[in-house]
Amino acid sequence: MKGLIRDLEQLVGRDSVQADPEDLLAYQADATGYFAKGEPVAIVLPADVEAVSKTVAYACEHGIPITPRGAGSGLSGGATPIKGGIVLDLKRMNRILEINHGNLTAQAECGVVLADFQRAVEKEGLFYPPDPQSMTVCTLGGNVATRAGGPHGVKYGTTGNYVLGLEVVLPDGSIIQTGSSCVKHSVGYDLTHLMTGSEGTLGVITKVTVRLLPKPEKDRTIIIVCESIKQAVETVSEIIARKIVPAKLEYVPSGAIRGMNRYINPPIETEGGAYLFMMIDGSLSQIEEESEKIKNLCQNSGVLSVKVIEEEGEAASYWKARTAAYPLLLAMVKKVIIEDVAVPRDQIASFAESLEKIAAETGIPIGMSGHAGDGNVHPSVIVYDLTDEVEEKAQKAIKMLIQSGLDHGGCISGEHGIGLHKSSFIEMELGARQIQLFRDIKKAIDPKGIMNPGKIWVEEGEAC
Amino acid sequence: MKGLIRDLEQLVGRDSVQADPEDLLAYQADATGYFAKGEPVAIVLPADVEAVSKTVAYACEHGIPITPRGAGSGLSGGATPIKGGIVLDLKRMNRILEINHGNLTAQAECGVVLADFQRAVEKEGLFYPPDPQSMTVCTLGGNVATRAGGPHGVKYGTTGNYVLGLEVVLPDGSIIQTGSSCVKHSVGYDLTHLMTGSEGTLGVITKVTVRLLPKPEKDRTIIIVCESIKQAVETVSEIIARKIVPAKLEYVPSGAIRGMNRYINPPIETEGGAYLFMMIDGSLSQIEEESEKIKNLCQNSGVLSVKVIEEEGEAASYWKARTAAYPLLLAMVKKVIIEDVAVPRDQIASFAESLEKIAAETGIPIGMSGHAGDGNVHPSVIVYDLTDEVEEKAQKAIKMLIQSGLDHGGCISGEHGIGLHKSSFIEMELGARQIQLFRDIKKAIDPKGIMNPGKIWVEEGEAC
Repeated sequence: MKGLIRDLEQLVGRDSVQADPEDLLAYQADATGYFAKGEPVAIVLPADVEAVSKTVAYACEHGIPITPRGAGSGLSGGATPIKGGIVLDLKRMNRILEINHGNLTAQAECGVVLADFQRAVEKEGLFYPPDPQSMTVCTLGGNVATRAGGPHGVKYGTTGNYVLGLEVVLPDGSIIQTGSSCVKHSVGYDLTHLMTGSEGTLGVITKVTVRLLPKPEKDRTIIIVCESIKQAVETVSEIIARKIVPAKLEYVPSGAIRGMNRYINPPIETEGGAYLFMMIDGSLSQIEEESEKIKNLCQNSGVLSVKVIEEEGEAASYWKARTAAYPLLLAMVKKVIIEDVAVPRDQIASFAESLEKIAAETGIPIGMSGHAGDGNVHPSVIVYDLTDEVEEKAQKAIKMLIQSGLDHGGCISGEHGIGLHKSSFIEMELGARQIQLFRDIKKAIDPKGIMNPGKIWVEEGEAC
Repeated sequence: MKGLIRDLEQLVGRDSVQADPEDLLAYQADATGYFAKGEPVAIVLPADVEAVSKTVAYACEHGIPITPRGAGSGLSGGATPIKGGIVLDLKRMNRILEINHGNLTAQAECGVVLADFQRAVEKEGLFYPPDPQSMTVCTLGGNVATRAGGPHGVKYGTTGNYVLGLEVVLPDGSIIQTGSSCVKHSVGYDLTHLMTGSEGTLGVITKVTVRLLPKPEKDRTIIIVCESIKQAVETVSEIIARKIVPAKLEYVPSGAIRGMNRYINPPIETEGGAYLFMMIDGSLSQIEEESEKIKNLCQNSGVLSVKVIEEEGEAASYWKARTAAYPLLLAMVKKVIIEDVAVPRDQIASFAESLEKIAAETGIPIGMSGHAGDGNVHPSVIVYDLTDEVEEKAQKAIKMLIQSGLDHGGCISGEHGIGLHKSSFIEMELGARQIQLFRDIKKAIDPKGIMNPGKIWVEEGEAC
C-alpha cells in the first residue's frame, strides 16, 4: 500500500495524492451512499491530462482499479469504488478553455462545475441547455459520463445531444481526441458518443467540446394546478400533441408543494391534486402566442388554475423550489430511492396509473416528481422505515415499476445512468446478446478491466 | 459459386437473390463509380429482418464478405463491394411502421426513401430535418450508416442528432434493438450512435427510430448576391455571430448560377461573384424579425442585392436548383470529386482563401458549393481532363485541401462518411491510436471481418 502511495506521489506530485483514512472515507460512494460503499486505497487529484495519463498507465501496468469521479453527485453509484483501488477526483481540472461565438461551441476541462460553465456561456449571450438539478455541484465531465439531463430535456435533449468531441485518456494511459468542433462530423466510429454515457468504464474523459445555442430572447413560467394526477398527465399529452414543446415541463406531486412553498413567493395554493411547472422560451412574440394557446387548452380541460408568471423573481422562485424538491423529500422521509425510468411521452398517463397500482399492491408509497414533458417521470420509492421488511417491499416495488416502464416501451434510465444501482435490471431492457456486446467492447478497449470495474452490468469475476 | 446461390435461394427465396452478370454489374459501386469497383458474386434483396439475419449468419459461417446497400447514392464508396461477396440490397424493406404524434417519434424500415419518409411525416404536421440532397433516392438506413446531413445541418444537425434507436443484425446474424423511443436514454454503451456512421462495418441496420420536431409554422427564402467569395463568407460569419441560425444557409459559386437558372423562375441575375441561398423558419413573427435583421446586416455590408422571396413557387425553384447543382456540375465537366471537408464556422473565410491558393498552386480548379452555415463547404475538385497528369494534380490538390481543413480545426468528412474514398486520409485526422481503437472495436463485434471489409481505414490483409 505504502509503495503504491509513494509511486503515485512520485508520478503526480505529493499535493495530488490523498490516502489518510478520513480522506478515503469521503470517497466511499456517490450520492447513493445508502446503497453500496467501496474502499479506495488512494485518491489522486490530477491537475492536468498528463497526470491523469500517468496515473492510468501506472494502474494499467499494476492491474489496479480506477474509478473516475466528478462531483460524486451521481444517483446510480457510478463513482462508488466498489472494487477499491484508486479514485481519480477530477475537480481540479476545471478550466473553461474557449467560448467561440463564431462557431457556437465551447471547450472546457472535465471538472468544471456545470453552473459555472452555464453562467460563463450565458454571459456571452449563448446557451448550454442540459440542466441536471445538481447543477451547482455536478461537473461537465460527470454529465458526459452519465449522459445527464434535466428539465430542459423535453425541448433541448440531454448532454449527449450537445457533445461534439472529447479528450479521453484510454485505459492504457494514451490520450486521444475524438470528434471535432465541427457541427457535422462523419469520420469513422463515433467514439465521442461511445464514451458519452460509458460511466468511466472505457476511459477517463478529460476535456469536452460542446455545441451551444443562441440564448432564447425571453422565457416565461406557467404554473398549472390540476385536480388530479390523471388531469396533469392528460394536460401534458395535449400540450405535446398540439406541437408545443415547452423548454421545461415538470410534474410536481401535491405532497411536495407544502415543502416547496418555503421557496415560492408568493406561496402557491395547496389544494391541487397535482401541479405542472412549465417554462416556454423563444422570441417575445412566440412566447406570447404559445402562452395564449396553453391557457386556452388548460381552461378547456378544466384545470383548477393556470398562472402565467410575468415577474422574473417570482418565476425564479418556482424553479429554485423545483431544484430543492429532492433534498426536501430526503429530509422528510427515512430513505427515498429515486428511480429514473423514462417512458414514451404518449405512455405517461398509463404508466402513472400503473405506479398507483404497484404502490397499492406493495404498500410502498411511490411519488412521481419528474420531467413529465419527456416521459422521464422519476418514480420516487419511499422507504418509510428502515426495516428488512419494508426494504424488501421497496425492492419488489422497484422491480415491478421497472417492468411496467419496459412494458410501456420505456427504458430503465433516462438520465442517471446504470452504475451499480440499476445493473441488475439492464438485461431486462437490452437482453443478453446486447450485454454480451457491451462486454466484448469493454474487453477490446480495456482488456485488463481496470476502468471502473463492477458497473453497468453484473458479472462474477470482474477484474479488481 | 452455384452452391452459394442455391444456398441463398433456399434461405431467403428465389425472388430475393440475383446473380446474373447484368445484375451484378449494377452493384459494382456506389455513386463514386469512377473511383473503385468491386465484383459481387450475389445480390440478396431481403424482404424482412429474418431474411437479413439468415443471410448474415450464412455469410458468417462461410466467411463471405457482406456489403449492405441503401440506394447506392453514397459519395464515399461505402457501398462498393471491394472484396466481392454478397451485396445486401435493402430497398425492399421500406415500410413506415409508425408516426407517433404523442411522442414526436417515428419508426421505419431501413430501405424507406428519405423523401417518402419526410412527406409522410410532414403530412402529419411533423418535421424530420436531415436532408441530404439525394433525398429523392437515398434511404433512411443509408443516411444512418453514413451519418448523412444536408443544408438543414446548420440549424438542425444531421442524421445522428435524430436517431433514437435501431434494430441491427449483428455480424453473427443475431438481432438486437438498441436505444429506445424515449427522448432520454442512459442505459449503458450508446450502441445506437456507434452503429450510426459505422458504414455497414459493424452490422446491418434494419429498422430506425427517430425523433421528430413540430413542423415550423412558416419558412422564407432569402437570396443574397455578393461581390466576391470573401464577401459571402464574411456575411455568413456575421449572420452566425449575431446569433441568427438559419434553417439553411448555402453557398453557391458564380460558375454554377447560369446552369441553375434553368430551374429558377424568374432567373437570378448572373453578375454576382458569389451567392448565398438562405432559408429561415419559425413562427410568422419570428421570421419577420429575422428577415429584417438579415436585410439590414446585408445592406450595411454592401452586398450587391438581398431578395426576400415571398412567393412559395419562386422560393421552391431556388431549392430545386440547389438540389440539382451536383448533377449539373457533373454534366459540365469530365469528372468532379466532391470533397466533404468541414471546418468550424469561424474558419470558413480563411479556409476559402486557402482553397484559392491550392487551386493556383496545383492548376486544378476548386469550386466551393456547400453548406456555408455549418462549415461543410464541399470543395469540388474539377478533373478537367482524364489524363494521368491531371489526375495526379487533382490528387495533390485533394491532399493539400484536406490538410488545410485539418489545420483550420476541421474534419475530413462532414456528412458523406469515409468509405474507400477517404480511408487513406483518416489517420491524418484521428491519429494511429484512434484507428487502432477502431480496429479493436471492429474485431470485438465482427471477429471474422465479414461486414463491409476494406472500408474506413486502410489495412493490408483485411478479411475477404
